[in-house]
Amino acid sequence: MKIIYSKKHNQHAPPYQFLGGRPAPYPEVPERAERVLQALNAQGFTEVVFSRAFAPDAVRAVHDPGYLHYLEHVHAAWVDAGGTSAAGLIPDTFAMRTVRGKPDTLIYQAGYYCFETQTPILEGTYEAALASAGCALIGAELLLEGERAAYALCRPPGHHAGWDVYGGYCYLNNAAIAAAQLSREGRVAILDVDFHHGNGTQDIFYGSNEVLFVSIHADPNRKYPYFSGFADEEGQGEGRGFSRNFPLEAGVDEARYLEVLDRALDAVHAFGPAFFVVSLGVDTCQGDPLGDFELSLEAFTHIGERLGQMGLPTLLAQEGGYDLETVGTCVGNVLQAFDR
Amino acid sequence: MKIIYSKKHNQHAPPYQFLGGRPAPYPEVPERAERVLQALNAQGFTEVVFSRAFAPDAVRAVHDPGYLHYLEHVHAAWVDAGGTSAAGLIPDTFAMRTVRGKPDTLIYQAGYYCFETQTPILEGTYEAALASAGCALIGAELLLEGERAAYALCRPPGHHAGWDVYGGYCYLNNAAIAAAQLSREGRVAILDVDFHHGNGTQDIFYGSNEVLFVSIHADPNRKYPYFSGFADEEGQGEGRGFSRNFPLEAGVDEARYLEVLDRALDAVHAFGPAFFVVSLGVDTCQGDPLGDFELSLEAFTHIGERLGQMGLPTLLAQEGGYDLETVGTCVGNVLQAFDR
Repeated sequence: MKIIYSKKHNQHAPPYQFLGGRPAPYPEVPERAERVLQALNAQGFTEVVFSRAFAPDAVRAVHDPGYLHYLEHVHAAWVDAGGTSAAGLIPDTFAMRTVRGKPDTLIYQAGYYCFETQTPILEGTYEAALASAGCALIGAELLLEGERAAYALCRPPGHHAGWDVYGGYCYLNNAAIAAAQLSREGRVAILDVDFHHGNGTQDIFYGSNEVLFVSIHADPNRKYPYFSGFADEEGQGEGRGFSRNFPLEAGVDEARYLEVLDRALDAVHAFGPAFFVVSLGVDTCQGDPLGDFELSLEAFTHIGERLGQMGLPTLLAQEGGYDLETVGTCVGNVLQAFDR
Repeated sequence: MKIIYSKKHNQHAPPYQFLGGRPAPYPEVPERAERVLQALNAQGFTEVVFSRAFAPDAVRAVHDPGYLHYLEHVHAAWVDAGGTSAAGLIPDTFAMRTVRGKPDTLIYQAGYYCFETQTPILEGTYEAALASAGCALIGAELLLEGERAAYALCRPPGHHAGWDVYGGYCYLNNAAIAAAQLSREGRVAILDVDFHHGNGTQDIFYGSNEVLFVSIHADPNRKYPYFSGFADEEGQGEGRGFSRNFPLEAGVDEARYLEVLDRALDAVHAFGPAFFVVSLGVDTCQGDPLGDFELSLEAFTHIGERLGQMGLPTLLAQEGGYDLETVGTCVGNVLQAFDR
């Protein structure tokens, strides 16, 4: 399986986030991607494709034009306005449920487009996000050219970024951008196995019956992003029935996880997709600092086996996974078992 | 004019807020209320009524039951969950425009009910907020008993708190609670002269034709709360035409302000209210750390004259005003001129 990677992710390295009432360490560090790449190389995945420039149309298919304008230009506007925080731009006032308008001023649109205080915008953030989306897009191209599978080493991750909202360390929705590209050639099923609900991906395809979204994640009553991922979210309009959510309790082990994964894969199978996109978060691993599931390293082998057994052209796009000691092995185990 | 005051405001004293990407000093300090009280005493306002217990029905008239339950109990839940930040509970993840659900867990409802990172909940916050609302309610009672006017020295302030959202240093909407009480006996006009848009008060009465809401404030393209207070917000449903907004440019001086105030008062007069509630923020004063208007101390005398000339039973409820050197004089000038 080819690995798609870009060094540009290093341009995005927030020094801290605001969490639990105070500045806190930033777990979505550049070293995550380097550790994954090293582990994959060590496991024999040596065919690395580098991210390259791509048509902006692919990104516009899943993100609002005003949102993209904001992402591209707000850091410069923030510096012009005197912004000096080492963390870059983190909003402090948010466009709630009761919002009535959007200010013209770019820096005050931060709280309109961003939904939390954990996803700063630094000078290199947009370029890193574009390169990350580029990894996913090249993966989609490889599938369209006939490859059985590809792995996009996306960083920053993408599944919390919606049509016009960002958060959860995500800016551009890599998996959704790839899925939109693939959907020109056939129906696409997205399975999100990250520990956290893929609220952004769901948001983008919530009204669509061409892209199925299935997510297995921590119950939002207990974990981020708190306000979506409940079992009763099933899509709307034409998309009704095309979002499926499996919120889970703390302490989920391999047996429990695989039982739920089988149900999720049944939904994918029933949909009959031409392409399969997996939002591959591995923060479900035992010991992940952000998760509370208890999957062993071997569990990822069994997850990879089941994903491979679907027999579908498959793009695996990296999402979360924050334990630097295990993140690479988890991903490698999935890929090795998938290829078997 | 009687002054209504409660010492309980001192139970709410956040050590910092999160603003501009970092922890920042908290301008809504207890000393604000003490300075106002001292200045009023010095100017001859010595008749002080103390806030007392009141029927919770008055608060439930303008706030959602789930919201009040949250405000009352979340600090204890946060401590139980291990919350230790000196600033108390400040949310980090918010229920945006795209929200799909609300978690059952009280501490994660913070981002559902709060819209920013500047309004922490400490142990004494809810009691202080209740006492502040009590000041406004006693003011309403005094008007119902036949007093011409009363001044409620409310702290924390209230006008950014909506039906089920808080922020902007506000938790319970004191002016709205008083207005709802007064509206049982006749139509009520609310004029909000705080530097910032009274988004909470507008939210509460946006669908009502029994309460007029008129606000003069900094353009939300330039200043907090950014997502409401635009000139085209006019109310909805039966309330259409009963919200009026006057967003203003930076550097507003006395002449400019009084010209706009006259237009706002024309709208109040045309409504023909039985009662008049003024959300009296004085952060419009030259030198206020949060404002960029240029009103002199004398301007507040002219504002007070015009408010008094309306000839209506009037409750003045304290909102913002953050320059400790001038806040008391500004309020005193309004009240003295009003009484003349």
